[in-house]
Amino acid sequence: MDMHDLTRELSLKNDSKIIMLVSDGIGGCALEPGGPTELEAANTPNLDTLAREGSCGLSIPVQPGITPGSGPGHLGLFGYDPLKYQIGRGALEATGIGFQLQPKDVAVRCNFCTVDDQGNITDRRAGRISTEEAAPLVEKLNNIKLDGAEVFVQPVKEYRFVLVLRAAGLGGSVADTDPQKTGVPPLDPKPLGERSNSTAVLAKQFFEKACEVLKGEPKANALTMRGFSPRPSLPTYEEVYKLKAGAIAVYPMYKGLASLVGMDLLGEAKTLSEQIDVLEQNWNDYDFFFIHFKYTDSTGEDGNFEAKAKRIEELDAIIPRIRSLDPTVLTVTGDHSTPALMKSHSWHPVPTLIHAPHARVDRCQSFGENEAAIGQLGTFEARFLMPMLLGHAGRLNKFGA
Amino acid sequence: MDMHDLTRELSLKNDSKIIMLVSDGIGGCALEPGGPTELEAANTPNLDTLAREGSCGLSIPVQPGITPGSGPGHLGLFGYDPLKYQIGRGALEATGIGFQLQPKDVAVRCNFCTVDDQGNITDRRAGRISTEEAAPLVEKLNNIKLDGAEVFVQPVKEYRFVLVLRAAGLGGSVADTDPQKTGVPPLDPKPLGERSNSTAVLAKQFFEKACEVLKGEPKANALTMRGFSPRPSLPTYEEVYKLKAGAIAVYPMYKGLASLVGMDLLGEAKTLSEQIDVLEQNWNDYDFFFIHFKYTDSTGEDGNFEAKAKRIEELDAIIPRIRSLDPTVLTVTGDHSTPALMKSHSWHPVPTLIHAPHARVDRCQSFGENEAAIGQLGTFEARFLMPMLLGHAGRLNKFGA
Repeated sequence: MDMHDLTRELSLKNDSKIIMLVSDGIGGCALEPGGPTELEAANTPNLDTLAREGSCGLSIPVQPGITPGSGPGHLGLFGYDPLKYQIGRGALEATGIGFQLQPKDVAVRCNFCTVDDQGNITDRRAGRISTEEAAPLVEKLNNIKLDGAEVFVQPVKEYRFVLVLRAAGLGGSVADTDPQKTGVPPLDPKPLGERSNSTAVLAKQFFEKACEVLKGEPKANALTMRGFSPRPSLPTYEEVYKLKAGAIAVYPMYKGLASLVGMDLLGEAKTLSEQIDVLEQNWNDYDFFFIHFKYTDSTGEDGNFEAKAKRIEELDAIIPRIRSLDPTVLTVTGDHSTPALMKSHSWHPVPTLIHAPHARVDRCQSFGENEAAIGQLGTFEARFLMPMLLGHAGRLNKFGA
Repeated sequence: MDMHDLTRELSLKNDSKIIMLVSDGIGGCALEPGGPTELEAANTPNLDTLAREGSCGLSIPVQPGITPGSGPGHLGLFGYDPLKYQIGRGALEATGIGFQLQPKDVAVRCNFCTVDDQGNITDRRAGRISTEEAAPLVEKLNNIKLDGAEVFVQPVKEYRFVLVLRAAGLGGSVADTDPQKTGVPPLDPKPLGERSNSTAVLAKQFFEKACEVLKGEPKANALTMRGFSPRPSLPTYEEVYKLKAGAIAVYPMYKGLASLVGMDLLGEAKTLSEQIDVLEQNWNDYDFFFIHFKYTDSTGEDGNFEAKAKRIEELDAIIPRIRSLDPTVLTVTGDHSTPALMKSHSWHPVPTLIHAPHARVDRCQSFGENEAAIGQLGTFEARFLMPMLLGHAGRLNKFGA
């Protein structure tokens, strides 16, 4: 029995408000044995109070030892088994730039490349042209017309862009055209199943028209395509939890992930303070709010322990504004760890707290990795956070008599 | 691979004795941050000694955040995945009054109702007639004869009763006849699959004969039927664990649940002390004993923190008599939490201890929610308790060479 079968059956509506505050990559590591992690080093009086008054634990994003990207990291937090719901590379890339995929779409991650007179690739990344150089080329490609399908081409960064084909009945199983080496031409887009024949035909047409458009460009005169994928089919928060949910994020990737599970995208905030403005403005209209804070991840990726601790303190300072709204359930967590020590995402479980009237108060005196290890939530898979939040919000009926 | 496939293959018989002492709803919550739970507040020198000498942990009854009823709560403790083995409403109700369902039975939960001259329902609960008023009516219904099936009608409480139809080949999929509103007649029992055609025909016959019998009654002159269900098909303790198991419970529901997994029902104890008498009397004849103590749940449901702590002390006081039998493995746990704070079952994990010669002694100095959070059993799904008990009893062979 899938967990969502259970929450579909047991969930009920009430007046509770749930806030999920995701501090991206918040989990960290000590720089030396006996030392504090970034979170433990930061001065966080407000998070510590939440920890003292609530329950803490450690969240495993996917499975022990597995380091997630942002996609599976957030799907887990949203309660969607990241191993069951895998988002194709193209769809994730489109989502990451805020492209709202429709059910009829197939998204493709593309790279500009350089080919010689014979059409053989001489540079798989087109000399790593800059975002600025790529922009006008992407715009030209976006004007390409195909028979029987709408075409959207959007820039990502440098030599990378996204192609979306929109037409009824397009399958998403087409082989990558990147030969992964130079001296040969890009491969033909080959359907990997009958349902994807027309997708492959459209992709081939797009490739040919694009090469015409790009003819004469010194570096970006061709392209390769990877990760053909349809819009992932995820049941919505309304369907599986009976929650009207809103997302308050700054970056396109997190807006995209939230919209895939049916959250409304709220506001146009650029700062944490503006995000809380948006929260206040929408407080009466939603049951559930996802608030995404990016900078604990980016400072971790930079390997800047001090800067990450400072960003955690910035997050801490906003907590009183959140608490003044008196949410029924407030959880603070992360989609994964990003230890400055490693300068990358990691598999380490993520400190997580739940603050609610019926949270079982534990012995955790502060919010941190090692305190959380003795907390009442134990060490749990992230996908179980949502049913725990629903339980704490009184939004789940008893299972069985 | 199902856990029972593993225990079927690995389990062996030896002379060990296992006692599972279930204190219903024992898990609780502090009334305020920093305060003790009911179990932590109670003076429990004997349980604390068990905790000091054994291993502790926290048991998740079904899944994180899910609040179980008594049925799934106990199935989990017995090692049966409560999501896989779901007991229908009628079967659970019959079990709850101690009716020993047979493989050919279909059980139905019935309500007396009041209908007017046209047969339309005017009161779905027959004016909530008392248990005493209902008793003679139930007895009359119990005398109804149907062609091709045995009929059993047993009282539950007030306007509620159980109907059991016994005949070969009866399917259990029949729609409820309660229209969930007044002003309309009870619905016909409609089969939801071909195998249940004869069940529906018998139910319709029963309804008609019952209405004749009840004709002229001022309040209870008709009935509705809900939760048609066959006896759940559970493998027995003997089959999956090679354990000869006995249950020592006071209340019918727990006797019923134990008998569904093949435990013998031992004695007629009415008090905890009498339950231990029964344990002593049957000590030589069984491998496994399930002892159920109800009052930590009922006091929790009453919201009476002090009374629940007192009941825990009552349980504690009986431990020396249990230990004097020198069981190989003694576990103390609960089927779920019932915090007095919430006056209801809850999702909070349940403090659990295992006392055995080879239990890994941990740092837990007393039996309680927060000590258990640092114990060697960790936070685990209740369905894994049984293999842990078998392991501690030396009753599981090594898996693989």
